[in-house]
Amino acid sequence: MRTLKVSLGDRSYPIYLGEGLVSRAGELLRKAGCGEQVGVVTNPTVAGLYLNPVQEALARSGFRVTSILVADGEGHKSLKSLSAIYDQLVKARFERSSCLLALGGGVIGDLAGFAAATFLRGIPYVQVPTTLLAQVDSSVGGKTGVNHREGKNLIGAFYQPKAVLIDVEVLRTLPRRELLAGLAEVIKYGIIEDAALFALLEEKLEKLLALDRGLLEEAIAASCSIKARVVEKDEREEDYRSVLNFGHTIGHALEALTAYEKFLHGEAVAIGMAQAAAISVGQGLCDAESLGRIHRLIKKAGLPTAIPSNINTPELVKKMEVDKKAAGGKIKFVLCAGIGKTQFCWLSPQEIMARLAA
Amino acid sequence: MRTLKVSLGDRSYPIYLGEGLVSRAGELLRKAGCGEQVGVVTNPTVAGLYLNPVQEALARSGFRVTSILVADGEGHKSLKSLSAIYDQLVKARFERSSCLLALGGGVIGDLAGFAAATFLRGIPYVQVPTTLLAQVDSSVGGKTGVNHREGKNLIGAFYQPKAVLIDVEVLRTLPRRELLAGLAEVIKYGIIEDAALFALLEEKLEKLLALDRGLLEEAIAASCSIKARVVEKDEREEDYRSVLNFGHTIGHALEALTAYEKFLHGEAVAIGMAQAAAISVGQGLCDAESLGRIHRLIKKAGLPTAIPSNINTPELVKKMEVDKKAAGGKIKFVLCAGIGKTQFCWLSPQEIMARLAA
Repeated sequence: MRTLKVSLGDRSYPIYLGEGLVSRAGELLRKAGCGEQVGVVTNPTVAGLYLNPVQEALARSGFRVTSILVADGEGHKSLKSLSAIYDQLVKARFERSSCLLALGGGVIGDLAGFAAATFLRGIPYVQVPTTLLAQVDSSVGGKTGVNHREGKNLIGAFYQPKAVLIDVEVLRTLPRRELLAGLAEVIKYGIIEDAALFALLEEKLEKLLALDRGLLEEAIAASCSIKARVVEKDEREEDYRSVLNFGHTIGHALEALTAYEKFLHGEAVAIGMAQAAAISVGQGLCDAESLGRIHRLIKKAGLPTAIPSNINTPELVKKMEVDKKAAGGKIKFVLCAGIGKTQFCWLSPQEIMARLAA
Repeated sequence: MRTLKVSLGDRSYPIYLGEGLVSRAGELLRKAGCGEQVGVVTNPTVAGLYLNPVQEALARSGFRVTSILVADGEGHKSLKSLSAIYDQLVKARFERSSCLLALGGGVIGDLAGFAAATFLRGIPYVQVPTTLLAQVDSSVGGKTGVNHREGKNLIGAFYQPKAVLIDVEVLRTLPRRELLAGLAEVIKYGIIEDAALFALLEEKLEKLLALDRGLLEEAIAASCSIKARVVEKDEREEDYRSVLNFGHTIGHALEALTAYEKFLHGEAVAIGMAQAAAISVGQGLCDAESLGRIHRLIKKAGLPTAIPSNINTPELVKKMEVDKKAAGGKIKFVLCAGIGKTQFCWLSPQEIMARLAA
């Protein structure tokens, strides 16, 4: 097991990365200082695979466990699900020292994290991400929240977990489509910050997709380290943290426009990255060779790069305007200035429309 | 106009106190650094009295104003009202720099503050309290939230405002029952921290109730200063801040047990303070003379001291166990160790029952 650290003063926490961490949950929650009562928030799919071992591990360390099930899917990252979690916490008499454990992907992590942020004005929580996407992205950095029907994550809080437990073994049960979607975020880290990671992916993608343990850990550790460094510099996304949003402005809009049903988050981000890279070339920031490498790697990972032809571009741009990064009528874009480098750029809806049409 | 300060590092903010501040809202929001768009959250009663002058003041300073109405009463401090506020913010395209202005009493302040804490993961807000209770207590210190049907404020966040505007003139339109309820919190500050304030109230209560401007400002300034100092020492209520909870453990339980319909918050707190003082004597912490002075002042202020005979004591104690201050089966009580002094004490439900019956 290796340990990375997110350094945020009194909100600092460790990211544990390795194999078999699910069955060490009790011991690691003790280390994180959690109280006697733990609520495991999960969905039926993940519960079928990992709820028993997690409950057993917690019980072995003497925790009292309540399991809280949320229906599967992005549509359930809602105020309604949140309200149902509150009801169960009240019923089970959760106290300020009680702890939530988010066992699942990004939906579960964001939802459980926001419940923890707001129940009794904040109780501790621990992330146990079970998708690659959650392991390299959403479980680290304290962004929590729920969706509004008009846009993703419009309601939420910055609230850091007490620890993140990344068990690479759980990826063996992850559907391949989900694995590929998670890979989109790993590719993102390469594009925005780490040319060496990008080159590693270009070279060893097949081995990674065959779930080579060493390579998985290397890619996840590199991703989490970048995320941790960015969050340390700008926890509340005053400015710099939005570098992580590369590919997400278009990605979020695509998801919203298709009612979160057509694309997995990573798939929408893959399209968003490919399009943002093309816009970067259009803006004279990025060379054509880097654009070619980005498109090739995304495709090699089995991910989409093109906006589907049935998507209405003006409507897509309209969705971007509801994004949290919009201000004064312009939209903040993260553009690519070559592999491993980024630049912020405020674009008007008209400019985006012209670039996407090009 | 006088200015007090709440010093919390980068979350510091001013409390402006004086006459006619409602019509200076625009200028003071500019000073607080609010963006172009302001959402005024208020209820129909307060809107009828002050929405126009506030809107005009904001418009004079160039703000774009959206008014957001929430039905009157504690029962509307709910997830449902919160959700309706989010809908209106999304519809009006609020951005991260947009600001909320809470125009009303504690319900409006807590609800608008929590909406601000969680919309786009946090936008700025300003408190313009229109009840005495909100002016001396809930508008200062950043506690925001909504009620759960099982207990008050079970859902919420610590989120500081950018400024608090206390206009004593608005107290002239406040119903007398509400004025007296607010006075309960002023009396509380005297009991827990300020023997001189307590003596002032004993001596000049009639003048205060006649809304003598100088005396009002003095009592409000003393109250807000105490609140500010306590919050500075322990913003997130790790321990010391709960001194402000004197009278509230029983008070909250009384409110919950009567479905927030029988008592105003201050009335329930008045009973809670009288009972907590009696428990303090029972625990050997408080002298009988102080107890007598506390009961006399509460009564002189036209507030209740006794638990109504139709209240079932075991049920009342049960409600206390859902309180955020409960832990390990015991309940954290703030007890009085003489006027101006407090002591924390963890009591079991059985001990509380015995003391209340005594």
